[in-house]
Amino acid sequence: MKIKVNKKILERNEDFAESNRKFFKKKNIFCINMISSPGSGKTTILEKTAKALKNKINIAVIEGDLYTEFDADRIRKTGLPAVQIETKGACHLSAQQITKALHQLDTDKLDIVVIENVGNLVCPSDFDLGETARAVVLSTAEGDDKCAKYPKAFAQADVLLINKIDLVKHLDFNISRVKRDAKKLNKDLKIFEISAKTAKGMQGWFNWLINAKR
Amino acid sequence: MKIKVNKKILERNEDFAESNRKFFKKKNIFCINMISSPGSGKTTILEKTAKALKNKINIAVIEGDLYTEFDADRIRKTGLPAVQIETKGACHLSAQQITKALHQLDTDKLDIVVIENVGNLVCPSDFDLGETARAVVLSTAEGDDKCAKYPKAFAQADVLLINKIDLVKHLDFNISRVKRDAKKLNKDLKIFEISAKTAKGMQGWFNWLINAKR
Repeated sequence: MKIKVNKKILERNEDFAESNRKFFKKKNIFCINMISSPGSGKTTILEKTAKALKNKINIAVIEGDLYTEFDADRIRKTGLPAVQIETKGACHLSAQQITKALHQLDTDKLDIVVIENVGNLVCPSDFDLGETARAVVLSTAEGDDKCAKYPKAFAQADVLLINKIDLVKHLDFNISRVKRDAKKLNKDLKIFEISAKTAKGMQGWFNWLINAKR
Repeated sequence: MKIKVNKKILERNEDFAESNRKFFKKKNIFCINMISSPGSGKTTILEKTAKALKNKINIAVIEGDLYTEFDADRIRKTGLPAVQIETKGACHLSAQQITKALHQLDTDKLDIVVIENVGNLVCPSDFDLGETARAVVLSTAEGDDKCAKYPKAFAQADVLLINKIDLVKHLDFNISRVKRDAKKLNKDLKIFEISAKTAKGMQGWFNWLINAKR
């Protein structure tokens, strides 16, 4: 019974995802879906990305959180348009929510839409949003065993941002282990070691994003 | 349709939770359900708790992860019995899984059972496991905005462990904000600022656990 109904929900999600995908293609928009645990630094990465790229390329952000408009407010302060989706307790964003959020953006002018998914390394992986690419963010403070424990998030991503590398010297975190485990799950995964806080490694991510759009 | 079926699943879970609760009461076992984001340090807290208390009190650990037996292995190295539940992708532990895991433990000798839930600050909050108390762990590296964003985890907990306080000097983390937000959701919440790594503040948590058992 559960499987049957969940299949229905996923099929319905897939319909909206397909429609979003077509929309992005038609508008020539590159859409990236960012997935991670709570507090990995997704919003800080986007704030810094906004500041670095906003005069070169048109970006909008769709923020997903259970509650609060905190993150959309942070993005708006950088000058970028942002739409906040409050899931009111739900553990992931759905493709239908993205369709609705896109109506609130002036998409004719956009090159890139970034979706910051709900902070959850499990459930968002099961929901295609119609994105062009998927990013997974891992904070070094979360430990180096996460690829094996949460494989789907890493196996399905196009790019892995290992964030907060400025903290590594204070942690027991083996970057080589993460890279090896991630590549085992996904040999084509592009990996950047970054610190959104100190800006270290961020240029590589900016370049990837701009080139991915092209 | 979804609501109806989920209600069924939750009702079924509640039956097993009630049975677990009766079992813990009969055996005079204090059971604590630990909930947090991935990588908040739950297993390290339990390793240190095991080492400090294993000669004073009988503890067993039930570990929940999507995949791997990493955490149960870490606990067993401290000398405590541990059962690993691999959810194979599911985002939370169920009361039925706990019932099954309890069959694998020699419960006649136990004072405390700690359940380390799947690393997920959202879904585990919805599933009563029949525990005596609930703990939420927040790593300082996750940021100080998490209470408002994930209120259920904090509202339902008896104790909040703010872990990795050794990192605070390298972060923008306002402990007062977290404590204020958490108390707003849950005025009876007991809060400990700890570092499982350096042992700072851990004695308070050990004392709380031993007294809670009494």
